[in-house]
Formats: sequence, C-alpha cells, structure tokens
Amino acid sequence: MKLAVIGVGLIGGSFALALKKAKAVSHVVGVGRSAANLKVARERGIIDSVGDAQDADVVLVAAPVGQYPTIFKSLSGSKAIITDAGSTKRDVVALGKHLSRFVPGHPIAGAEKSGAAAASADLFRDRRVVLTPTAGTDGEATSTVEALWKACGARVSRMTAEEHDEVLAAVSHLPHLLAFGLVHEVAQRKNSEQLFSFAAGGFRDFTRIASSHPEMWRDICLANREFLLAELKKYQGKVAAMERLLQSADGAALEKLFAEARGARDQWLKSSS
Amino acid sequence: MKLAVIGVGLIGGSFALALKKAKAVSHVVGVGRSAANLKVARERGIIDSVGDAQDADVVLVAAPVGQYPTIFKSLSGSKAIITDAGSTKRDVVALGKHLSRFVPGHPIAGAEKSGAAAASADLFRDRRVVLTPTAGTDGEATSTVEALWKACGARVSRMTAEEHDEVLAAVSHLPHLLAFGLVHEVAQRKNSEQLFSFAAGGFRDFTRIASSHPEMWRDICLANREFLLAELKKYQGKVAAMERLLQSADGAALEKLFAEARGARDQWLKSSS
Repeated sequence: MKLAVIGVGLIGGSFALALKKAKAVSHVVGVGRSAANLKVARERGIIDSVGDAQDADVVLVAAPVGQYPTIFKSLSGSKAIITDAGSTKRDVVALGKHLSRFVPGHPIAGAEKSGAAAASADLFRDRRVVLTPTAGTDGEATSTVEALWKACGARVSRMTAEEHDEVLAAVSHLPHLLAFGLVHEVAQRKNSEQLFSFAAGGFRDFTRIASSHPEMWRDICLANREFLLAELKKYQGKVAAMERLLQSADGAALEKLFAEARGARDQWLKSSS
Repeated sequence: MKLAVIGVGLIGGSFALALKKAKAVSHVVGVGRSAANLKVARERGIIDSVGDAQDADVVLVAAPVGQYPTIFKSLSGSKAIITDAGSTKRDVVALGKHLSRFVPGHPIAGAEKSGAAAASADLFRDRRVVLTPTAGTDGEATSTVEALWKACGARVSRMTAEEHDEVLAAVSHLPHLLAFGLVHEVAQRKNSEQLFSFAAGGFRDFTRIASSHPEMWRDICLANREFLLAELKKYQGKVAAMERLLQSADGAALEKLFAEARGARDQWLKSSS
C-alpha cells in the first residue's frame, strides 16, 4: 500500500512512522510547502520520496485546514482513499464533498510541538481518533481508514461532524483560546518580565497549549467559531459566578466548587488510565 | 538545629527532607491535625518525632492559612525563628505581627499532590522562594531562613508582601481559579462523561492545577481576593476581546494574538531553563 502524506508535520509524520512500524504501508510519499521540513522527514525515514499524491492508494491530508481548498482541488478525480486529520469536521465535510472516497477524521493527539522533527511512531498509541463519515461516505473507505488508525494503536470512534465539533469546542478549542489569552495578557504588561520570572509549574502546564501552532489554531477557531463562541459564553458565565463568590468572600461556596472540580478531574483521570 | 514543621504535607515534608539531606538540621518534630499523615511522615523518615514546637530553634508553618490564627496564637512568646510557606503574604504579615522572630516566606513550588506521602527532598531545587520581611522583621532571623532555603537548593528573593501578592495573583492564583472553573463547567454538563472521554493531553495539562487542595485554595482566594479580582477583571477583558475577534471572524488578528502568546511563552521557557 502506497501512502501519500500532505503536510508531513507532527500528525502526518507520526501517522507515516506508525504505519511503517506496523508494516501497513510499503512506500510513503511526502507532499508539503517546506523543503526543509521534507528534508527532515526523509532523513528521519518518515517518507521515502518527495512528490505528489497521484499514485497513492491512501492519502492523509494533515495540513492546516486553511490549505484544504487548494489541496482538495488538486485531489479532484483521485481514486485514492483520502482522509484527513483536521481538528474541525463540519467545514472539512463540506470542503470534501466532491471527493469520491473521502473519510473525514481527527486524531485527538496534538501537542505543542510541530514539524517532522517532532513526529513519533507512538504518538497515537491509546489515543482517540474520531471519524465523521456522512451518509454519502464510501463504507469500504471508512473501514480501511479505521483499520489504519487501529494499526497506529489508536481507539477509533465514529460520530457526526456536528457532534464532533461541539465536543471538541468544549474540551480542546476553548482551553486553547483561554491559554493563549492568559499568556498574551501577562506578556503585554509592563512588568511582564517579573511576572514570568515568578511563574512556576502550574503556569507552565496551564499554558502549555499556548505554544501551539498559531496558523492552525486560527483556522480551528474560525471553522468552529459558532460552537466556540457558545462555549466561551458558558465559560464567561462560570467566571462571573466565581467572581461573585470572591466579591462576597463566600469561602464555603468556593471550596465546594474547587472540591467538585478536583473530584471530577480525579475521577476522569482514574477512568481514562 | 532542631526544626519543627507544623503541617507535614508536600511543602513542610519536603522542607524537612531537603534540610536532612543537606545535614542542616539534627532533629525534626512534626505537628499536625492528621495522625495518619504524621504516621506516614515518621515512616518515611521525614520527621523524627511527633509533638509540639516548644523546643524548636526554627519553626516552619506549612498549614493552610486558615489555620494560622490558632497556630500563631500557640507560638506567642516563642523565641524560635518562625517562618511559613503560605501562598499569600499580606494577610500572613498581619497575623504574625506579634511574633518576635517571624519571617514570612513563600516557596513557589506547589504541586497538585498533597500530604507527607508526596514530599520529596528535591522539590525546591532551582525553585524560587520569596521572603517578605517587613521593616520590623529580625534581620538575623531573615538571614537564617534564607540560608535554610538555599540549603534546599532554592533561589531566594525578597520583596514586599504587597508586591508578592500582586505578582502571584497574576501567574498563580488566577490560573488556578480558571482551571477549577473549566473543569467545574464541563463536569456540570449533562454529557460530561462524553466530554471528558474526548479530552486529551491539552485538557489534562491545562487543568492539572484543578486537582489542587480545595481548602488551601479557598484560603488563598479569600486572602488575596482584591488582587485576584483585579486580575480576573483584566482577564475577562482579554476574553471579551478574543470573543469580538471570533465574532468578526478576524483571522489575522487571532493569528497575531496566538503568535505573540506563543512567542512570549517560548521566550520565557528559554530564559527560565
């Protein structure tokens, strides 16, 4: 099986490495904008050649969603099974409508690192991948894509693009926006150097996702902005509620909220481990 | 030198372990509310005996700030050098005014773990400790406390309690509140189980500090609520600004904000490593 990866970054590169390790692909061709990144990908054995997606059996599109219109146009008429790794799915489903064997997908395994240099064969092990096939999606193509992700060690789920985007707005897109916002707020202060110098592990972890790829996150925020705005509104309501507890110095209610949050998080960690 | 630790948790226990490792103390007596925790502290060699702070040369108060009035009352008339590990300092300075050799301090090295079981001799290595002596603080006592923290491997700074509380509100107290709030918001939804099940590493790190100690964070929020409310207001302004960028689908401005935040964070990590 010949695989083409369009966008050989963290996600695309890790997909190629994982499938090579699982001996599920015989040849990987890399397609991308950056010659330097493709060079790294070849040197690391992620791809076997640089070229185009013409002869591939399977194509993974792992570029920022803003580039999809151009990429999908170049894939028009392709008989390959095409899938993608975009973090939003309603927009991608709409963009890929004209492709005959397109299976929209999202591996939930981002990291703040990017580029082929950060790719790893184990990135998807035990991670979730969501496929969002529509009524018109080729069933065989969906099964093949599912099998490839399973070969990477991932846990594959299927849901509608709408449901996917709503869930991810809450647990991924909103936290990213909030983390970018906090770092930006601190960075703009006159005493930002002092503030950063007393920031510790809590700040570092809270803001880790603020080191994510700006272009990619611009595209995600724009593509999912209705659900993201709805989540932002709910979160603003929560913050306002906490503000009122602070204003009235309601220690009992604050402690209750903190304890409930801690309990829910600990329960989540226990059930997901 | 005989050390008494009141509250043998993560911070108090780690202070004792680090000073034992540095051979800076000969005997450590543990004081606390939980017999079970003190038992763990003895078993782990953190403390040598359980008792009171009567005969100690140095006393570290590492209990939640809510317990300080009672603890400080019991230390009235003590000739020992007394210091503390509270995360807020203006309130602690006021509470400790009647103690003759009290040096207010704050090791910035929390973690979401708590209790003697989590203590480690290396917790403070290369971490910052802030001392906030006032004009009336015994200079020799301050130097002794500084030397002890340095023996733990920490980097010690001095500033006013006011300055400390303002800085920490921005880079520690606010992120904790925001993380508790996000987890609480998700946990209260009808589909919280589904939401958590698709939460990944970004969510886990963003919310790590939401597993912090509820009672301790209640006390911090109440003690520092003016500065925390001011920080919350600024952050709400930043969130509202991002909301407007989303509403107007201003991709360029969103990408700029994300890139500036990422750049500032990367710069911070580089300069702090």
